[in-house]
Amino acid sequence: MQLTLVGSGLQLKTDYHGGVPRKSLTHLECSVANTVEIVNDSWTVLILRDAFLGVRRFDQFVESLGIARNTLTTRLERLIDSGMLDAVPYQDNPVRSEYRLTEKGKDIFDVLMTLWAYGERWNPPSDPDHQRVFHVDCGNEAIAVTHCSHCGERLTRRNVRIEPPSPVVVTAGLESIA
Amino acid sequence: MQLTLVGSGLQLKTDYHGGVPRKSLTHLECSVANTVEIVNDSWTVLILRDAFLGVRRFDQFVESLGIARNTLTTRLERLIDSGMLDAVPYQDNPVRSEYRLTEKGKDIFDVLMTLWAYGERWNPPSDPDHQRVFHVDCGNEAIAVTHCSHCGERLTRRNVRIEPPSPVVVTAGLESIA
Repeated sequence: MQLTLVGSGLQLKTDYHGGVPRKSLTHLECSVANTVEIVNDSWTVLILRDAFLGVRRFDQFVESLGIARNTLTTRLERLIDSGMLDAVPYQDNPVRSEYRLTEKGKDIFDVLMTLWAYGERWNPPSDPDHQRVFHVDCGNEAIAVTHCSHCGERLTRRNVRIEPPSPVVVTAGLESIA
Repeated sequence: MQLTLVGSGLQLKTDYHGGVPRKSLTHLECSVANTVEIVNDSWTVLILRDAFLGVRRFDQFVESLGIARNTLTTRLERLIDSGMLDAVPYQDNPVRSEYRLTEKGKDIFDVLMTLWAYGERWNPPSDPDHQRVFHVDCGNEAIAVTHCSHCGERLTRRNVRIEPPSPVVVTAGLESIA
């Protein structure tokens, strides 16, 4: 594990994953890689989901997720280090903190909504009364799809392209796949 | 590791993660949990990204991602088992396969687009000439936001709610967070 000065602050450049040092993904020069370097495992995503649902305290996360306490500690520390959660003390003796989403944490909303929609389509929970997201304005289940933030039109595999193209493939661009 | 009959087919109920058995997340009865149970680590997401970019062959993935061959083998097997990739032979002797996105794999598009947008906002690559996604129809960079698939309106933290609410929090619903 090595602390390196990157950009404006201290950043963990390698990480231990089940005891195996993992290489940083920043060399890929890709925004997807940079996001999954933070949101890189199931627990991290589920802790963020719970934070959106209003879960704030350590024992609430344990109860909600059935996560081991040491695993939760590690994941919360990473989310604080990456700037997605703030630890806000709510008790002095002993010190206890609530974990609150920062602006950077709240901005993961769109990612969570697409993960939710994908699960509803392909791996819905077996319990018919499982938690669902609803769009308050229209009253229907909020199955998220992506739109272009500039023009507002629906984004599809066929109307986006990558620039510059990947050097390892002959025909580059998302539109090249059926 | 244990194979159990779940729903219509055989499903791996526990998984080894760095040598540590990991509990299945299906007990959470949550679509986010069910999605991250498949798309559960950085390499898996990046392999899917590459598949969208047109990468098909084992050595192309190695070259593009700098991923260890045994790691790639494990992740490709998982993606095939989960129904997101098909292995299609392109050579007989020795047998070599291309890895192609299935419909279930192609449908992860919206998730990738939101991961991409998040990275562009919060952790953009240092190289100013890094790969970007463009919306062909309007010509601008495709920074994805989520809309309701039913009514087409923008989804935000304030116009969605969860039902039923989480039992561990007093005020449930995404609208409860600032």
